[in-house]
Amino acid sequence: MPELRKDPITGRWVIISTDRARRPMDFVRESVTIKGNGFCPFCPGNEGKTPPEVLAYRRNGSGRDTPGWSLRVVPNKFPALGIEGTLDREGHGLFDRMNGIGAHEVIIESPDHMSTLASLPQKSVEETLWACRDRMLDLKNDRRFRYILLFKNHGEPAGATVEHTHSQLIALPIVPRWVREEVDFAKHYYDEKERCIFCDVIRQETEIGERIILGNDYFIVLAPYAPRFPFETWILPRQHSSAFENMPTPYYGSLAQVLREVLQRVDLALSHPSYNFVIHTSPVGEEINDHYHWHIEMMPKLTKVAGFEWGTGFYINPTPPEESARFLREAK
Amino acid sequence: MPELRKDPITGRWVIISTDRARRPMDFVRESVTIKGNGFCPFCPGNEGKTPPEVLAYRRNGSGRDTPGWSLRVVPNKFPALGIEGTLDREGHGLFDRMNGIGAHEVIIESPDHMSTLASLPQKSVEETLWACRDRMLDLKNDRRFRYILLFKNHGEPAGATVEHTHSQLIALPIVPRWVREEVDFAKHYYDEKERCIFCDVIRQETEIGERIILGNDYFIVLAPYAPRFPFETWILPRQHSSAFENMPTPYYGSLAQVLREVLQRVDLALSHPSYNFVIHTSPVGEEINDHYHWHIEMMPKLTKVAGFEWGTGFYINPTPPEESARFLREAK
Repeated sequence: MPELRKDPITGRWVIISTDRARRPMDFVRESVTIKGNGFCPFCPGNEGKTPPEVLAYRRNGSGRDTPGWSLRVVPNKFPALGIEGTLDREGHGLFDRMNGIGAHEVIIESPDHMSTLASLPQKSVEETLWACRDRMLDLKNDRRFRYILLFKNHGEPAGATVEHTHSQLIALPIVPRWVREEVDFAKHYYDEKERCIFCDVIRQETEIGERIILGNDYFIVLAPYAPRFPFETWILPRQHSSAFENMPTPYYGSLAQVLREVLQRVDLALSHPSYNFVIHTSPVGEEINDHYHWHIEMMPKLTKVAGFEWGTGFYINPTPPEESARFLREAK
Repeated sequence: MPELRKDPITGRWVIISTDRARRPMDFVRESVTIKGNGFCPFCPGNEGKTPPEVLAYRRNGSGRDTPGWSLRVVPNKFPALGIEGTLDREGHGLFDRMNGIGAHEVIIESPDHMSTLASLPQKSVEETLWACRDRMLDLKNDRRFRYILLFKNHGEPAGATVEHTHSQLIALPIVPRWVREEVDFAKHYYDEKERCIFCDVIRQETEIGERIILGNDYFIVLAPYAPRFPFETWILPRQHSSAFENMPTPYYGSLAQVLREVLQRVDLALSHPSYNFVIHTSPVGEEINDHYHWHIEMMPKLTKVAGFEWGTGFYINPTPPEESARFLREAK
C-alpha cells in the first residue's frame, strides 16, 4: 500500500510508493564523468575568459585575475539578471513587473578541473562555504536585494553547463515564493507553540533514528519524512540558527565535513549521479529570528522519475526515506 | 535587461530573459516520434493485458475488453495509489500520514497506435474530453476523494512510459497544495473585488492582444504574462466556469478544436516536442463558485532548460511570452 505523507514544515503532501520501492541500482542511468577535454574558462590561466573576479582566496603574491588562487568568484558571463540599474517597479493593470536587477555569480570551488565537490579535500569544501558567506554578506549591503540564493547544479542533467566544479549565487530583488512560504509556515508554527518547527523535527527524528544518515557535533544529515524526490537529503545545524551566513566560525569546517561525506556516499550509492543542492536561509533583513532554521536541501537528479511532477506540481516518490537513509548509512 | 514578472494569480515571480530570447529552433533537441515497434498493451487485441476497462466508447455490439472501441479507460497497471481500503489518517508526533488510497486511470485516446492527440481527428479529441468528464463525475461519488487530477504526459522526456497516445487521471484523498493555493488566491481576490481574477486576466489580455494565440467562440488560448516555462500556454473558457466537468455540452467540441489546434501549432513551431498538460479545476465539493476559473496549462518540455528550477523552485524563462505567442500565432 502506498502512503501519503505530509511535510510538517510546508504542508505539502507526497505519495511514497512503499510497495515497489526503488533500490539505488534502479536509478542508475547516467553517471557524471569529468571529461576534461576542450577549453575551460574556469581553469587557471584562463582568468581573462571570465568577467573580473569579485573574490578570490590566493597564495600571497598572486595577482588579481591571474593563477595562484585556490577559490575564485566571478560574475556569471551569461547572467540571469543584470547588476546595473534601478528596479523601476511598475504595474500595468493586473500585471506587476520590475527590471531584472540582481547579481549572478559563479563560485569556482577549486583550480583542479578533474575534481568534484565530493572528491576535493575538505579544506576546499570549507573554502567554498566561506566564499558563500563572504559574498552573501557583501551583497546584503546592496539595498536592492531581498534574497540571496545559493545553489549548486552538478552534472548536465541537473543544469550544469560547465563541468569544472562550481556553485552559483543569485541575489534577487524579491523573496521567491517558496522561501516566503517556508519562512511563513515556520513563523506560524512558532507563533502557536513558541518553538522552531525544524528544532522539533530534529528532536523527533533523533528519537526515531531511522531517517538519520549521519551527523557530527554541529550538524545532522537526514532523509526528510515526506521527501519529494528519491534520496532527497537535508543537512541541518543541530542548534537553532536562522541564517547560514551568521554561522559561528567552527561550523564551517564541520559543515564541510558532513557535506563532503554525504556527497561521497551519494556518489557511492548511486554511481555518481548529477544533483542539485540549495541553501535555504532567512531573507535579507530577517536574519535574526526564532522561527526559521537554515538548512541545505540536496536532491540527486535520478533520470526518468520526473515527468509527472513537472506537469502537476504533485510528487510521487518511489523511494521511502527510511530506505534511502539506510542505503546512505551503509554506503561507505 | 531581463525582467521580473509576477503572476497575478499565484503571486509567483519569474525571470524573463528578454535579452537573449530563445527562438523556437534553439530548443529543438528531441522530437517525439512514434516508433510502433514492440508489443503495446494499449492496442486493440491486447485488451487482456490491461486491467479490465472502467469505461469505453464502442461500436454497437463489441464486448467489454475486446476490440471495437474508439476510446478506452482502464486502471493503471502500476498505480501510484491503491483503490481498495480506508484512509486510516494518522499522526505520529509532527508527522501526518494516511494510506495511499486513490484511483489512477489511463485514458487510451484512440485505438490507432501511430497517432498523437494532435494528429487524431477532432472527434477523438472530443471523446477524450468526454471521457475525462465521465470519469470525474463517477469518481466524485467516492467520498474518499478530494481532487481529481487530469493530465497528459506526451513523450518520454515528459514522463510517458507507453508511447500509445493516452492521458491520465489520479483521484486523490487530499487537495494538492498547488491547487489549494491557486484556488485560495482566486478566492481572496474575489473577496476583495467581487470579480474572478481569471476573468479579469482574460479581459486585459484581450485588450492588449500580444499574448493571445488563438480562440474560438468559447475558448481563448494565450501565453500567460509570467510563464514559468518557455512556450507555456493556457487554454481558458471565455465565460466564467469553475469546474471542467460541468461544461455545457457545446463546449466539448469547441475545446477539442482549440486543444488540437494548439498542439498542432506546438508540433510545427517546436518540431514535435514532448509536453505535459494539466487540467486545473475546482476541488471536489467546491465545484460551483464565482472565484475559480478552470483552465488547461500546457508546457512543452524543452530539454536542457530545466536544471536551475528543479533545485531552487525559482523560474528563469528564456522566452518572453510575447515571443512564444507570436511564434505560435504564425505557426500554421
